Amino acid sequence: MKKIAVIGLGIIGGSICSALTNAGYEVDGFSRGEESLQYALQAGYIRQKATDLTQYDVVIIAVPPKATMHYLDNATFKDGALVTDICGVKSVLERLVYAKPRNYRYVGMHPMAGKETSGIRSASSDLFDGANVIITRAEKTQESDVIELKEYIQAMRFGRIIECTAEEHDKKIALTSQLAHIVSNAYVKSPEVRGCEGFTGGSFQDMTRIAGVDETVWTPLYACNRENVIKELSGLIAHLQEYCDALQSCDDEKLSQTLKEGRLIRETIKRENKKK
Amino acid sequence: MKKIAVIGLGIIGGSICSALTNAGYEVDGFSRGEESLQYALQAGYIRQKATDLTQYDVVIIAVPPKATMHYLDNATFKDGALVTDICGVKSVLERLVYAKPRNYRYVGMHPMAGKETSGIRSASSDLFDGANVIITRAEKTQESDVIELKEYIQAMRFGRIIECTAEEHDKKIALTSQLAHIVSNAYVKSPEVRGCEGFTGGSFQDMTRIAGVDETVWTPLYACNRENVIKELSGLIAHLQEYCDALQSCDDEKLSQTLKEGRLIRETIKRENKKK
Repeated sequence: MKKIAVIGLGIIGGSICSALTNAGYEVDGFSRGEESLQYALQAGYIRQKATDLTQYDVVIIAVPPKATMHYLDNATFKDGALVTDICGVKSVLERLVYAKPRNYRYVGMHPMAGKETSGIRSASSDLFDGANVIITRAEKTQESDVIELKEYIQAMRFGRIIECTAEEHDKKIALTSQLAHIVSNAYVKSPEVRGCEGFTGGSFQDMTRIAGVDETVWTPLYACNRENVIKELSGLIAHLQEYCDALQSCDDEKLSQTLKEGRLIRETIKRENKKK
Repeated sequence: MKKIAVIGLGIIGGSICSALTNAGYEVDGFSRGEESLQYALQAGYIRQKATDLTQYDVVIIAVPPKATMHYLDNATFKDGALVTDICGVKSVLERLVYAKPRNYRYVGMHPMAGKETSGIRSASSDLFDGANVIITRAEKTQESDVIELKEYIQAMRFGRIIECTAEEHDKKIALTSQLAHIVSNAYVKSPEVRGCEGFTGGSFQDMTRIAGVDETVWTPLYACNRENVIKELSGLIAHLQEYCDALQSCDDEKLSQTLKEGRLIRETIKRENKKK
């Protein structure tokens, strides 16, 4: 039986431990916070504290990007260990890993799951049930390493597995997740936001659900994917300005056309998704 | 028993008919489209076609803003009839109604319910179950008229009733609904939108759920609330530009502060809503 270490016992790390332990794997864990470690031990998420990473065949790094980069660059892993991570940005990590020869095998992973709360108390073995997960492939990625990672992914009961390059991941994530969090965070800044909770049938809730981003988590994520996020954000601002211009110039035909363009794209996406 | 006429048999008009008929009221309906009328008759939503509006104690106008304005200004109602409407904009209607003496009593209404589909085939008696509804009050509004309207609102099984002026309604709706539809419609215009459906844990779905707005419905709604929508949209663009500037100047402290401002507002809203 392969020995697995999970570094970082937050909601994601804790849930990975719990899910893999439930699936029958031998999982040890490490957290800088003694409380999270004790919680993981008492909840039965892990067998014991992971102290020496050279003892593990598989290491799953579940900490923020900068700390992940520190581990990938400086930690001593077992020769040939499979090392993965859960970061929401992938290109910076791959560039670091492939910058010099490593004694470990790296395949990046990004679980598309979470909650509005964080920490190991929010962790659960079913957090990933049916969720999407992305595996990033580089030129140097070995097929056998991807197959091995998929074994653990399936044990965690993810739904769909998407495979792509780190660059494609970062471009798509800039739109689907990073931009969405900025828009939601900006949306609540209207002076009309106070006392408006009765004035909505759901659109406002959708727009603002993820407004409460933890800036200490998200600022580094944005910094690690700066160019893609700038591109998406500038693009959205330019598009929004078109509606604003049409409204300001009382050009209702232009406004209608601008809305129609979005509707047609939306319908195309829906059709394409149905086919899959 | 008071006789009720519902003008317009789309999803909202049809659902009003069905809900009020179920509650024991005598409801007749009118639609320009013969098919909707036949559907409403066969489904038992209405007793018969409403041909002469002077026969009704209550008239509920459930058509788009321009047609609503046409009815409010030109139709012949029974003396003292209670007339209401379901439009998503309210100030333009009140200004029209109160521009000259009327032989009817007007109280505006805005049901915060709907579906992504439209037409009477999407109507159902439970569309309004627990939904918010707004009643607009003007200086001339009589308390007894509001009480009477609330009787029908309760029969339709709405949840919370919010009462405010038409001006306040239009300001809040510009943010909670009208801006949301523009943002969602603009969001899908990114070149990265194709093939991104696997790259999201839900944020992207939330942002784009209402992207497919019907421009023939929404353009007039925006036109009737132009100044408020411009104000919200300009405000959002200015806020989004702050994140963009911070990203472009690599000022992560500024970016963090900008995100924190939104998070704090979001937390304040959540706290306030919990108290209610």
